[in-house]
Amino acid sequence: MAMQLIECVPNFSEGRRQEVIDEIVNCFRDKRGVYLFDHRADEDHNRLVVSLVGAPAPICDALIEAAKAAEKHIDMNKHQGGHPRIGAVDVVPFTPIKGISMDECIELAHAFGERYYKETGIPVYFYEDAAKRPERKRLEVIRKGQYETLKEEAKTKPERRPDVGEACLHPTAGATVIGARKFLVAFNVNLDTTDVAIAKKIAAAVRASSGGFCCVKGIGLALEERGITQVSMNLVDYEKNSLYRVLETIRMEARRWGVSVIETEVYGMIPVNAILESAAYYLQIADFKPEQVLELKLLDIMSEKAE
Amino acid sequence: MAMQLIECVPNFSEGRRQEVIDEIVNCFRDKRGVYLFDHRADEDHNRLVVSLVGAPAPICDALIEAAKAAEKHIDMNKHQGGHPRIGAVDVVPFTPIKGISMDECIELAHAFGERYYKETGIPVYFYEDAAKRPERKRLEVIRKGQYETLKEEAKTKPERRPDVGEACLHPTAGATVIGARKFLVAFNVNLDTTDVAIAKKIAAAVRASSGGFCCVKGIGLALEERGITQVSMNLVDYEKNSLYRVLETIRMEARRWGVSVIETEVYGMIPVNAILESAAYYLQIADFKPEQVLELKLLDIMSEKAE
Repeated sequence: MAMQLIECVPNFSEGRRQEVIDEIVNCFRDKRGVYLFDHRADEDHNRLVVSLVGAPAPICDALIEAAKAAEKHIDMNKHQGGHPRIGAVDVVPFTPIKGISMDECIELAHAFGERYYKETGIPVYFYEDAAKRPERKRLEVIRKGQYETLKEEAKTKPERRPDVGEACLHPTAGATVIGARKFLVAFNVNLDTTDVAIAKKIAAAVRASSGGFCCVKGIGLALEERGITQVSMNLVDYEKNSLYRVLETIRMEARRWGVSVIETEVYGMIPVNAILESAAYYLQIADFKPEQVLELKLLDIMSEKAE
Repeated sequence: MAMQLIECVPNFSEGRRQEVIDEIVNCFRDKRGVYLFDHRADEDHNRLVVSLVGAPAPICDALIEAAKAAEKHIDMNKHQGGHPRIGAVDVVPFTPIKGISMDECIELAHAFGERYYKETGIPVYFYEDAAKRPERKRLEVIRKGQYETLKEEAKTKPERRPDVGEACLHPTAGATVIGARKFLVAFNVNLDTTDVAIAKKIAAAVRASSGGFCCVKGIGLALEERGITQVSMNLVDYEKNSLYRVLETIRMEARRWGVSVIETEVYGMIPVNAILESAAYYLQIADFKPEQVLELKLLDIMSEKAE
């Protein structure tokens, strides 16, 4: 069961020309070990977001191929769009899913960054957990002023120089931000009160920025049409801050105000272990192993067979 | 997402001759759409139990191949073993997992039974949900007196005649019991009391035979070495009687006796939907879709790619 699975969500600066979008997306089709989950092109952002899951090596190979297609067709000097960007291939985040640690994902990002510059000539900045300078953990810092500013400052300001490559961007493709980050779970809790102050107090109690759980970001807001309020959260490390622990803390805080949880929402994708951990908590299942779940064992066996 | 998945656990009357075991098990290897989960040969029972998951059509093809191997090597007139049996291929149960209803599994069992007799000459009895006579729902009724008795009575007693085939068994391979049944979840709840009477009362409250939940079988017993007691259950329809509902009922009954749940055990395999349903209950997740679980979406995509 040595299967390694990562998620990778590369962003490309092309959301309008269908033939370019197709050429990029096709690099991720029909590749053994690469599974194309989704791709969305946004005309206003002029940006393409591709969601991939699979084994590290074939995903990296396909990314190189896609980067070459992007480099051929996208000229950042002509690119316009509503989303901040610095390159034709703007960001490439690697996320560990199964059989691979965060440290291994960071190594993967660094090795891929070196190879990427060698094969495409596009310089690389490392971000999030793969950042080599602490301030570059934050994507906004790297992307400050976007392509137009960075192409000048990379040459002159040492603190804006790429992590891999010369002190100047690629003449048309700009630069690429490559990194490693944990899987982000979007988890919202709806409350049976119209008083947004209560939702805000509860959000403050659970989120890191005001002293709550270290891996929770969150705000309290009103869902006007429904006449209820919500604690809207991102769990940036669902292993350290499990869904059940965050939810039970919210239920506990809500009782203080005579408020109850109406329902919760998991927005978008969630790794199965995030669900299993909460199920095992509530059901008090001792020694529960993911391989006991029929579909997960099937996935292991299919992956071995596919190799 | 038209993927159909079934589980099938055929039992063969050979647990001693390794070369015969290998020949049978090999019929399930390297077949597109057939995933061999497990196989266990028991010398005392002189019996081989194979666990398969996959698509209905290729599983049926592989079963025919394996039945021909069993028919070639196993002579029921010489077979001895501690487990009740009537044939070289003793039982073949089909269980719906995904994208296939129980009615479709019953149809599958019936169509497979006809084909099986045509291609192997081994007569067939239908059991569980695929039974064509109500008393044959129960395997014990079909297997009464085992091979030695049935080979005589099939000829003379109309109520013991096979559902498919002549009124006489195959001269060496006997007969095969084919059926459809739901996935059985083994779920145990451990209690912090040494008083087995309490575990028995709680078991009686939740099991069908004494008026509890219709799809729960269970007993109360002592775990002597641990000095605790257990409600040991089989959930014969986890969709009708969810784990959370059974567990919360047990917690509620236990309170009457001042007793708590120490922990629970899921023994063996469990379909992911049984876990998701309980997670969605406790976490109050609204509109949660299995496709939101990354690994389950991956399984869908891999299955499509493998077809």
